[in-house]
Amino acid sequence: MRIILASLILLAASNAAFAEVQSKAVQYMDEDVPLTGYLYWDDSIEGKRPGVLVIHEWWGLNDYAKQRASMLAELGYVAFAADMYGNGHVTDKPGQAQDWMQEVTADVELWRHRAELGLDQLKASEYVEPDKTAAIGYCFGGGTVLQMAYGDADVLGVVSFHGSLPAAPEESKGKIGPEILVLHGATDSFVTSDIVTNFQNKLEAAGANWEMDIYGGARHSFTNPNAGEYGIENLKYDAQADARSWQRMQDFFDELFGD
Amino acid sequence: MRIILASLILLAASNAAFAEVQSKAVQYMDEDVPLTGYLYWDDSIEGKRPGVLVIHEWWGLNDYAKQRASMLAELGYVAFAADMYGNGHVTDKPGQAQDWMQEVTADVELWRHRAELGLDQLKASEYVEPDKTAAIGYCFGGGTVLQMAYGDADVLGVVSFHGSLPAAPEESKGKIGPEILVLHGATDSFVTSDIVTNFQNKLEAAGANWEMDIYGGARHSFTNPNAGEYGIENLKYDAQADARSWQRMQDFFDELFGD
Repeated sequence: MRIILASLILLAASNAAFAEVQSKAVQYMDEDVPLTGYLYWDDSIEGKRPGVLVIHEWWGLNDYAKQRASMLAELGYVAFAADMYGNGHVTDKPGQAQDWMQEVTADVELWRHRAELGLDQLKASEYVEPDKTAAIGYCFGGGTVLQMAYGDADVLGVVSFHGSLPAAPEESKGKIGPEILVLHGATDSFVTSDIVTNFQNKLEAAGANWEMDIYGGARHSFTNPNAGEYGIENLKYDAQADARSWQRMQDFFDELFGD
Repeated sequence: MRIILASLILLAASNAAFAEVQSKAVQYMDEDVPLTGYLYWDDSIEGKRPGVLVIHEWWGLNDYAKQRASMLAELGYVAFAADMYGNGHVTDKPGQAQDWMQEVTADVELWRHRAELGLDQLKASEYVEPDKTAAIGYCFGGGTVLQMAYGDADVLGVVSFHGSLPAAPEESKGKIGPEILVLHGATDSFVTSDIVTNFQNKLEAAGANWEMDIYGGARHSFTNPNAGEYGIENLKYDAQADARSWQRMQDFFDELFGD
């Protein structure tokens, strides 16, 4: 018995050591725009599990969004890093990022539709429990997942990390199904206190289930270790806000998915 | 081996079943005002452990604050429910509560000193690691632990649950040692959005390490299941905000105490 027990412990340890996050590129289309997203999962886990959609920053689907999707897979979720721009569009130039972002956000229906196509890819995965999904997003992606919530996308919840904060429109009143978690830097100069107050008031008016956590001293892009490299004063990594927001997201998922 | 293993499991289970939170009344004085607090700890835990000060709502040290202290002991902390009014003052009448609260808060030095006397009682316990303490408070008690932070009390952090939100004074700039976590109901009509904005701005100006989590739809006293019994429209229990804020506090303590 002692030997069997020891063997079981060793086996468990070796499973953990060999658990490996797998990924694959997924091609999909929005009319004539070719999109390429990436699915991440841990193949040492058996059976279906909750799925999380990841929406990138305004730079496009770069390594940062993929890394977050990979980290979600390490936590035991299936994650799909969606592509909101298509045509392989990724940049580190703010002007270019702004242009591509505006092409998507100018039409709110297109914006939501593009995101929901990513959600479809996630739900199509054989590893995903399709009734246990959520969406997270960073910067532009934070605004995107809020738009998904306003459009009552079929997810249990959304999490915005240092997102733009589009206000809930009048017509979403009483119709926002997903729970909303907003993780925000107090000194993010892209989002003034007037915008924050209006954002909260509109969520109340819409009857949304929402929470907003504000991190003192944190600027925009506080979760991204490379934030300081873009030459923009308002972008800065904040280790404490990063760790806390990632933990808060996990507690939120535990609540949503009943883990 | 199988029998030994089974016995060990049974023993562990019975330890958990018999683990019991102990409590004792502690008498102390603030000059000529007699105070009575209550210490809570789990006597199945060996050795010293982190300690948490609990400051009551404006009603005085009633069963609610004691219950929270007991819950903290169940989590493995030592907790001390302090007495801020003395002379056995407890009420369920808002007018009386208001009078007693104002007697304490009218003089900020008295206010902080009264709270720190409670902290002294906590640290004097043989079970407490005196360099691993925090303070939490509800309603008036939330404002109290913020004042402790502004006075640089010797705790690692403070947590305000639906607290009044006194702004950090000018003279606290650069001198606020404890980390601050504020858990707030978005529709708490005692605290307007102007008060919230000013509160956050003053924390930034003071250079405090702070976070504020805002729960949509939650009113004042959202953690107290009896909130609705006082006949005040703005007092209401909110199960989701209660569960989330209690979880957030635990994550904050894990970070502070290095668990």
